[in-house]
Amino acid sequence: MVHRPRKAKTALRAALAAALLATSVSAQTFRRTAACPTLGCIFPPDQSSFIAGQVFDIRIEAQAPVNGSMPFNNGVVVGEPQLWIGCKNKELQPITDYFKVQDVKPDAYNFTYYEDLFAQDAKTPTLVNVKAKSYRHVALYEPGEWKIVLKYNGGSETVAKWTVLPISEKRLAKNVVMFIGDGMAPSMVTAARLLGHKTINGQYDTTLMLDKSDHFGMQMTHSLDSFITDSANSATALMAGHKSTVNALNTFTDSSGSGFGNAKFETIFEMARRIYNSKIGIVSTAFLADATPAAVATHTSQRSQYAYIISQYLKGVTDMFPWTRWDGPDVLFGGGGSDFIPNAKNNRTSYIDAFTDKGYQYATTNASLAQLDDSKRALGLFSASNLPTWVDRHVFPENLKNFGAWNATAKNFTAPTTDTPGLKEMTIKAINILNKRAQADDSNFMLMSEAASIDKMMHVASYQRALGDLLELDDTVKATLAHLEELGIREETLVVVTADHGHGFDVFGSADVEYLRAQTSNDKKRDAVGTYAESGLSAYQVPAGVNPHNQTVFSSPWGEGFPVEWSPRYAIAAGFAAMVDQYEDYSTRNGSRETSTLNKTTNRYQANIADAPKGFFISGNLPTNTDSGVHSLVDVGVYSWGPGSELFAGMQDSTRIAQKIAQALSLGCDKNKTMSVHRRAVEF
Amino acid sequence: MVHRPRKAKTALRAALAAALLATSVSAQTFRRTAACPTLGCIFPPDQSSFIAGQVFDIRIEAQAPVNGSMPFNNGVVVGEPQLWIGCKNKELQPITDYFKVQDVKPDAYNFTYYEDLFAQDAKTPTLVNVKAKSYRHVALYEPGEWKIVLKYNGGSETVAKWTVLPISEKRLAKNVVMFIGDGMAPSMVTAARLLGHKTINGQYDTTLMLDKSDHFGMQMTHSLDSFITDSANSATALMAGHKSTVNALNTFTDSSGSGFGNAKFETIFEMARRIYNSKIGIVSTAFLADATPAAVATHTSQRSQYAYIISQYLKGVTDMFPWTRWDGPDVLFGGGGSDFIPNAKNNRTSYIDAFTDKGYQYATTNASLAQLDDSKRALGLFSASNLPTWVDRHVFPENLKNFGAWNATAKNFTAPTTDTPGLKEMTIKAINILNKRAQADDSNFMLMSEAASIDKMMHVASYQRALGDLLELDDTVKATLAHLEELGIREETLVVVTADHGHGFDVFGSADVEYLRAQTSNDKKRDAVGTYAESGLSAYQVPAGVNPHNQTVFSSPWGEGFPVEWSPRYAIAAGFAAMVDQYEDYSTRNGSRETSTLNKTTNRYQANIADAPKGFFISGNLPTNTDSGVHSLVDVGVYSWGPGSELFAGMQDSTRIAQKIAQALSLGCDKNKTMSVHRRAVEF
Repeated sequence: MVHRPRKAKTALRAALAAALLATSVSAQTFRRTAACPTLGCIFPPDQSSFIAGQVFDIRIEAQAPVNGSMPFNNGVVVGEPQLWIGCKNKELQPITDYFKVQDVKPDAYNFTYYEDLFAQDAKTPTLVNVKAKSYRHVALYEPGEWKIVLKYNGGSETVAKWTVLPISEKRLAKNVVMFIGDGMAPSMVTAARLLGHKTINGQYDTTLMLDKSDHFGMQMTHSLDSFITDSANSATALMAGHKSTVNALNTFTDSSGSGFGNAKFETIFEMARRIYNSKIGIVSTAFLADATPAAVATHTSQRSQYAYIISQYLKGVTDMFPWTRWDGPDVLFGGGGSDFIPNAKNNRTSYIDAFTDKGYQYATTNASLAQLDDSKRALGLFSASNLPTWVDRHVFPENLKNFGAWNATAKNFTAPTTDTPGLKEMTIKAINILNKRAQADDSNFMLMSEAASIDKMMHVASYQRALGDLLELDDTVKATLAHLEELGIREETLVVVTADHGHGFDVFGSADVEYLRAQTSNDKKRDAVGTYAESGLSAYQVPAGVNPHNQTVFSSPWGEGFPVEWSPRYAIAAGFAAMVDQYEDYSTRNGSRETSTLNKTTNRYQANIADAPKGFFISGNLPTNTDSGVHSLVDVGVYSWGPGSELFAGMQDSTRIAQKIAQALSLGCDKNKTMSVHRRAVEF
Repeated sequence: MVHRPRKAKTALRAALAAALLATSVSAQTFRRTAACPTLGCIFPPDQSSFIAGQVFDIRIEAQAPVNGSMPFNNGVVVGEPQLWIGCKNKELQPITDYFKVQDVKPDAYNFTYYEDLFAQDAKTPTLVNVKAKSYRHVALYEPGEWKIVLKYNGGSETVAKWTVLPISEKRLAKNVVMFIGDGMAPSMVTAARLLGHKTINGQYDTTLMLDKSDHFGMQMTHSLDSFITDSANSATALMAGHKSTVNALNTFTDSSGSGFGNAKFETIFEMARRIYNSKIGIVSTAFLADATPAAVATHTSQRSQYAYIISQYLKGVTDMFPWTRWDGPDVLFGGGGSDFIPNAKNNRTSYIDAFTDKGYQYATTNASLAQLDDSKRALGLFSASNLPTWVDRHVFPENLKNFGAWNATAKNFTAPTTDTPGLKEMTIKAINILNKRAQADDSNFMLMSEAASIDKMMHVASYQRALGDLLELDDTVKATLAHLEELGIREETLVVVTADHGHGFDVFGSADVEYLRAQTSNDKKRDAVGTYAESGLSAYQVPAGVNPHNQTVFSSPWGEGFPVEWSPRYAIAAGFAAMVDQYEDYSTRNGSRETSTLNKTTNRYQANIADAPKGFFISGNLPTNTDSGVHSLVDVGVYSWGPGSELFAGMQDSTRIAQKIAQALSLGCDKNKTMSVHRRAVEF
């Protein structure tokens, strides 16, 4: 679910009202530029940490607001911004000397933004003039603290601290499998366990695979300049080790308003490809241009640049500046076929042809996936957009026809989807291909596999479907560990499962859905909820009240770890910390939910009674210009197995996930082939 | 916050309507008897685990419903229930032979309950006749699996598995400090960190003490027969290692409807007192008869039996049956003084006199707390009911006058509270007393310290106050670890911090409270919330927009780990998964909240606009016969330090907390003085 930012500057760039607003209001709802509280901006910003040898771009800006709460020099930037660098208290040097790069002519432009909601209502934006410079494709190798000083606007300074992480002397793991349960908050893991596993007198008879990790920790998901992250931003932290801003993929969003040319940084997947020639796999149940898969190896501050992202999957960043050599992943499996066929947004390119021209095999169904040659690279596009959820595939298979599979005749995604792989099938096949290809040249592999619809279904309050996909993720992790064992590579493969953020969600009781439906008033319908003792036991595993000696006859038709019954009379009563107006009946619906609909008169979303005609009304707390739920603050779990898994125990920042994987793989080490290029820009 | 169960049987016992309801409805909202899906009940139930030598009672019931979905023999119980026991596939023996106890005459009675909400609306209860037997004060010593067979109703059998945990050969820790953050969900820990600690570009500059635990895990909180727990029930799991039912303290709730005489089991605190003569401390910011402190050493299925609980603190279980010798804790500090003075409920006893007559010192203020002699036992009662929250004590000290301190003249709790200790002061003093007393007889100590108002404030949606008390808990843990170090006992003291359950709560953005207040429509007020990028940075640490080079001047007046500003313009926007109808303005109020008020015409709670006159309306999802929020399902964190702390890493059931502490203390071992009493009831 792509959220809808309301950042003012892009929309209003062309139409600056000259009105000045003298105010002491300081920016929170809207910020002038991320990570830039002063008028001098450094990217990478203060507190950045780098893997030794990790390639990155530098961007500096000097800003001069014409009006607003921080007006400067009538909006005229003084001179040119200049950057200095020094390691561990050594003398500062001009950045051009240190990296032996040419200085660049500053780019001059302006932008506008609103300082707060009052200014937005009054249509009184703030105008800011900017001079900016970018230095491309550099790297630092010497571990320790670096001091970065920006001199700008005739005497002002902004200081940043950068840290180069210790050299990882010892390689702990050969391969890495990273699972992302998108949006998977701890409360959702708990709820999924309740649906998928049986309790006897309050204790679980079986538990999740996630409950049995070798090591367990949590991570903090905050963004660079906002405490609630989106999935682009958080995936960037997990895959490259840098905090960024909402919507940004492996770049720092600058004030230019452009999605291109922002300061980039290398992901651990790109580093591994560069250093080890690692085989890289990308698997997702989302459309493949979506943020989480895109974060493996693409770079843009606008996650919505789908064609650009798909182009980068195939060719890397080639349009503007030198970047890490990249010629496509070894495996790319997921949904979103419609972004790969000719359309207005991608200049009418068939990316399917572009991939197959480059030697990729192409799978479009579960059957053709199984038949792929493990020795060759492969693209798999199994639906037009997001793949059907586990619940759609197993409980309501009649829904599959709506998802659109590859139609070889029409060359589009209009065929009925009858044979769609799930996360498990895609992941196991990806491992087979990656492992075979890594064996062929004695390299290694890294796979990123995302359970995307945990998040997508939470956004639309279809938590039953979200929990189904969470159980599918758990089942996939279990199957992956067993498969690595079968392949004889479990002892050399690090497996890390985490989430990119949470949703404010929890179960607070059970609801008698029959009673709820039989009542006519809102109050009586709400009485259907039982809390505390009246929440009772999970009815998803054993029909309530059945003699426990008969329990064994109630096993899930979908195997251990899935519910016996998806639509019990006593359903979980669950809710959201952030809600749109809606009707709720606690049932597992046949289709996805449309909780609210746009009222075209008021231009606001209102509860959609058609979504739950027998439900009761809940007025939410989100702005009514929003049609779906949002991400939340909660820390998320980190579950790890195998060599190096001990690094992930306890509480950690999200950026440490990428950095610890790099440590386990010894990416920042002497084997790094570019390590000889000290103290200057990395050669391309 | 005591929740309000709606269990029908107690209310309706006296007034059984004879109407029969033939139905196949099975029990979920209301259950006939906890842990008893068949008509034969065994307590301790199937799946129970015992520390070797842990004392417990056994109760068995044979039930015969007259009507309802499981009618039996016209409601006539056949014969007497009989229990058999055998270890590891050895031959079963009658329980009376095995434990060498006399058989008892069965107690015969009946009770009624509603099978579902339809039956409740129709006032058609089910009548059940019962014959029950109890065997008191037994213990098992041989580790491994035990099979328990109940024969009842002329040929029916109910089978249970009991496990005696392995003997803990090696004692890992001498002392234990156990902290309970009542209701502390992972999302609340995250939110408290955001308020109490500073981020720079998305990464924390300082973090919680909880973030720095030696080991980290989580635990599952479900009850014996419902997946949502209350605090009595969950504290029982944490302190005795047995799942129980809502409202029950260290007992299994049987069908008798009585709060007394239910089958009890020993807590680890009672075991340690019995085996090591351990010094026991109980500290809470709640009223001291509340569930969590009561779970340390009291036994009743009705947590609301406050006078009975206070009597048990002092004298143990003396009214009916033999039980573990107990003559009072060494330290008892908290609120709830009004339960200790003569009143109708406690037969006009002054428990303050009863304690001081037994040699306890008595403290009533922070100053008198500090002056207590560390070598003597002490009672501290610092307010009439719950102690004021950290926010009341530090941000709104004018509120303290409402809490009521000891009035020595009137001998009641009516004095203005001006000098109330917080959790930290009580905990540090408790450790001093316990340590000194343990040194005096070369024993050890165990302390339970509860941050109670994390939960109490969440129930009334005062999440700011809840988070303040969570930060106070964190500060107390930090101070405790430092103090143990100073005392030279940190290396021999296990510190475990956990919660008893969560609340469905999360932060989903920020709210411009000035903008919200300035709007007149519900929709425009809701527009004050910024999500994703517009959530911005925490305004509780640094006034938004301030030059970061000036950040050092903004330090909390309350020390590191607390907010600089409690009422920023950009407040966190937070919500609950389970809500009553309310008005919200996201401000930190001077007083506590009363989100909803009873409409005496409809007898339902409705949103109280006086609680937030400038706020916007939210209609909740809880039954409108409820006036406050409820507990939730989410797993909660386990943070541990010191010897044995490694046992608590990863995912675990709540009962394992007590069992692992017992393991660290080697309670189930040869030093257990009653170990010689094999195969029969423990001598009293």
